[in-house]
Amino acid sequence: MRILGIDPGYAIVGFGAVDYERNQFTTLQYGAITTRSHTVFEDRLEEIYTDMTQLLDTVRPDAVAIETLFYTTNQKTVIAVAEARGVILLCAKLARVPIFEYTPLQVKQSVSGYGRAPKKQVQEMTRRILRLPEVPKPDDTADALAMAICHGYSFRSRQYGIAQTRRQQMGYY
Amino acid sequence: MRILGIDPGYAIVGFGAVDYERNQFTTLQYGAITTRSHTVFEDRLEEIYTDMTQLLDTVRPDAVAIETLFYTTNQKTVIAVAEARGVILLCAKLARVPIFEYTPLQVKQSVSGYGRAPKKQVQEMTRRILRLPEVPKPDDTADALAMAICHGYSFRSRQYGIAQTRRQQMGYY
Repeated sequence: MRILGIDPGYAIVGFGAVDYERNQFTTLQYGAITTRSHTVFEDRLEEIYTDMTQLLDTVRPDAVAIETLFYTTNQKTVIAVAEARGVILLCAKLARVPIFEYTPLQVKQSVSGYGRAPKKQVQEMTRRILRLPEVPKPDDTADALAMAICHGYSFRSRQYGIAQTRRQQMGYY
Repeated sequence: MRILGIDPGYAIVGFGAVDYERNQFTTLQYGAITTRSHTVFEDRLEEIYTDMTQLLDTVRPDAVAIETLFYTTNQKTVIAVAEARGVILLCAKLARVPIFEYTPLQVKQSVSGYGRAPKKQVQEMTRRILRLPEVPKPDDTADALAMAICHGYSFRSRQYGIAQTRRQQMGYY
């Protein structure tokens, strides 16, 4: 199963593509889509749309795993992050790739075995699980890879888990 | 100048298209894009994307006027509304239509002359200005038409006004 993990944002969109077969991860590609600051916001959305569409076309994942966004996230940026996230969800949908959402708690729990593990610990576990020489930079990329691992590990229980996550997040279905 | 006013949302996207020439409005088309509840969220985003793209292609506006979204909006829905709004901004950008944002205060001020005017009053003024037999339904459609009027009236000062609005809203440019 090929998984594209995504850490959504409007300035930096972290991504990490992995294959997960027989309890083993193979890292394919990771990095970040970055948009230029001091540009009109919709131009940044278009950059994300173009780059994400191309990434999906290159990676051709079986699933996109993306972080759930909460109202309690940074108040100053949460609306802009959500706008960018909407564009990312659209890209995955247009590419006909199923989308799965995980909370930061689920990712930490899944990768490090402890839902309140510090960021550094989750990053180090991500590095080890994927057998990478170093923790990927920026943090958004490391987070995206952790997201992909989380989806791999959650494979069996994912449909139930996601339904729960979405309902909790949205509250209006 | 042809203006497409938009009231963003994920369940209902109100829209209203008007021509504004020599201080006179001509109403072209108004209504709402609605998405089915109890469907997967990204399916709703795709519906909005498809319908909005078609609407822009039909109306071919010179400007899109859209409501600014604030963090103080309904906490339960603001993230989903912002995700849908991101898709709408993308549609306008891909259609190469300039986007202008107005706060509810600016719209009320512009349409009714009073920034704290009640909703009913703004709707009645919208009806009169556009010489419509009745206040358009749903409210989202009436709001979208008010948005279009606001942009028409703000024409001369709009570039300055928008720059202000965006900076206030985003806070990170």
